[in-house]
This record gives sequence, C-alpha cells and structure tokens, in this order.
Amino acid sequence: MGKILDKELSDLKERLLTMGSVVEAQVARSIKSLVDRDNDLARKVIDADHEVNRMEVEIDEECIRLLALRQPEAGDLRFITTAMKIVTDIERIGDLAVDVSERALELNEEPILKPYIDVPRMAKAARNMLKEALDAFVNRNAELARAVLDEDDFVDELNKQIFRELLTFMIEDPHSISRAIRITYISKYLERIADHATNIAEMVVYLVEGRIIRHMDNQQANPASQG
Amino acid sequence: MGKILDKELSDLKERLLTMGSVVEAQVARSIKSLVDRDNDLARKVIDADHEVNRMEVEIDEECIRLLALRQPEAGDLRFITTAMKIVTDIERIGDLAVDVSERALELNEEPILKPYIDVPRMAKAARNMLKEALDAFVNRNAELARAVLDEDDFVDELNKQIFRELLTFMIEDPHSISRAIRITYISKYLERIADHATNIAEMVVYLVEGRIIRHMDNQQANPASQG
Repeated sequence: MGKILDKELSDLKERLLTMGSVVEAQVARSIKSLVDRDNDLARKVIDADHEVNRMEVEIDEECIRLLALRQPEAGDLRFITTAMKIVTDIERIGDLAVDVSERALELNEEPILKPYIDVPRMAKAARNMLKEALDAFVNRNAELARAVLDEDDFVDELNKQIFRELLTFMIEDPHSISRAIRITYISKYLERIADHATNIAEMVVYLVEGRIIRHMDNQQANPASQG
Repeated sequence: MGKILDKELSDLKERLLTMGSVVEAQVARSIKSLVDRDNDLARKVIDADHEVNRMEVEIDEECIRLLALRQPEAGDLRFITTAMKIVTDIERIGDLAVDVSERALELNEEPILKPYIDVPRMAKAARNMLKEALDAFVNRNAELARAVLDEDDFVDELNKQIFRELLTFMIEDPHSISRAIRITYISKYLERIADHATNIAEMVVYLVEGRIIRHMDNQQANPASQG
C-alpha cells in the first residue's frame, strides 16, 4: 500500500501545481486585460473562475479520499492536510484575479489616468511568489519557502509606492479620484495575492521544520499608513 | 474508542467556539478603539493577536492528532478537515481586527472626519455572521449557515454606502482624502471579515449537504464599482 500512496501523493502534487499554473495564468490575464484595455480578456478571466473552483473541490475530495482509505502516517498526513489548506489559498487568489478583471472592465470605460508601470511589476512578483511557494511545498523545500517571504516585502513596497503616487493624483484633481481608487484597489488585490503566497510559504516552513513563522503583515507595508 | 472520539470532537467544537469568541471580541474592541479614539485599546488588540495565532496552531495540532490516532470515518473525518480550514478563516479575521486597530491608531491622530455610524453597524453584522457561522458548524446546521449568506448582502451594501459617502468628502475637500481612504480601508476589512464568515458558512453547507454553494462575491457589492 505504501507504493500506491506514493503514486497518489505524486498525483496530488501534480494537481496542485496544475491548479497553481491555471491561477497564475488568471492573474497574468487579468493584468493584461487592464494594460491592453481588453474587455474580452477580462470577461474570459471572470468566466474561467468556475474552473478554478472545480479544481479546488476535486483536490479536496482527493485529499479526503486519501485520508479515509490510506490512513497515512505522520509526514504524509501533514502533507495532505496542508494541501487542503493551501488549495483554499490558491482558490482565493483566483477570486482576486476576477476582482482585478472587474476593476479593469470599469477602468477601461474611462480615459487612461496614467500608464500602468508598477502594477504589472507587482503582478509579476506576486505570480512568481505563488509559483515558488507551490514548488517549495511539493518539494518540501523550506529554504525556497523562506525566499518567498522576503519577496513579499518588495510587493508591499510597490503597493505603498502606487498608493502614494495615486494619492497625489487624487489631491491634484478630484476628477481622478474614482479611477485612482480603482487602481489602488487593484494594487491591494495584488498585495493580497502575495499575502496568500506568503501564507502558503509559511505553511511549508511549518510542514518541513515544525516551526511557526507568522507573517508580520500587520506590522509592515500597509498603504493606508502612508496615506 | 467511538466514545472517546465523541468526547474529543466535542472538545474540539468547544475550542473552535472559544477561539471564535476571542476573535469576535477582538473585532469589537478594534471598532471601539476607533469610535472612542482609544489608542490603548487599539494596542491591546494588536498585542492579543499572538494569542489568536496560538489557538489556531493548537486546534490544528489537535485535528492532526485525531486524524492520526482515531482514524475517524466519513462524517467525522470531514468534520475535522473542515475544522482545519475554518480555523484558518478565524485566524485571518483576527488579523483583520489588527488591521482595523492600526488604522484606528492613525485616524485617532487627526481630527475626526465625521462620526462613525455605519462602520459600527457593519462591524456588528460581521461579528454576528462569524458567530452564527460557527454555531452552524458545530451544530451541523445548514439552514443557519444559509442565513449567514443572506446577511453578507447587508454588509456589502453598507460597505458600498460608506464608500459613496466618503467619496463625496474626498471630492469636496482634498484635505479629507487620506482620512477618508483610511476609513474606506476599515470598511473593506469589515467586508472581508464578513466574507470569511461567508466562507465558513459555505463550508458548513458543503459539509452537511455535500452541495457546493460558492459565494458570488465577485458579482456583487464591490465598492470600487460604485466609485
């Protein structure tokens, strides 16, 4: 039975990575729909979310099945229960890609406030964090997981920077307020995507080392504290 | 062994409810620190967060222990894995109470922009949703869980209303922008608390009925779409 479980665990990892890639692509497309002002693409992201939800349920069910039938021991048991938590974070990143697309649809209806430069950079960093956090998980690599935590600071810094810049727009021209606020929302969504990746990375460190390193996101990098 | 598991499951429920009450109180105190401009209270909320984190870890460990030693069957197995997911949502509500307190500390340094009326109402509704969602979980009550989903609309509506009102302040007086934005952030935090309660309620419906009702928070009630 041990062998069967190994194969099943490796299938589980594969599915998690696949779901991660799908969600990463959703984030990338949501930002592309904003930068290219492409409403069709934004709608595609929104429509594809049910696929992400379906993947979450399937992975959850597979985890339950493994727990019920294989009665995995310590290490595998923790791996499977961690997978069940991680899949929730991945799914919520998918929801945030939908949120980005919805703000994109709204912003695309109005004149461009300013070219998007930092937002795509932030999205790229957040996507990379998700990818690395999942790689760290399937390879039980605590070192890689810790690297993800460091990257979160960069994303938080970009979020603050975007916020400060948009604040000057708002103060100078009240007509820009509603657009500027939508962009700060997108920036916040990306920060939350990075936070989910950070949560995953923390779970990996706990899984591998049994040590709790709680992300200090309450102490750092809150854009409102710069407002 | 069945009896031992019953006792252990009922202890687990008790611990989840306790953690829920602690977090509910954290939310209440964070809003009180805002309304009463009480910095000491805000700092107390921030300091108490480690206690919430500790409770999460303990409940997680207890769940792992039950899975490993008791090899629970179908219903109990699902109950325990759901508890492990729910505890993450409760912990993140705790983080949001800290976020509220931090914005309160900042707002308390400046003159009051306007009396807080809708924010406390929203907080009360969100706390109530958390309480009901957890009650629904420990009692496997799908009907109560569905009621929580309905309440989410009310919270989303208040969030939109707060946003619209603050937007008029910002447009009329640029000096109000940074304070107004902080208040919209608090309103957003409360909306996210309600979303976490909604996530818990959805998991309860799935646990009890095996039916997926995914919260449509992407279609509804995004304040930016009103901006």
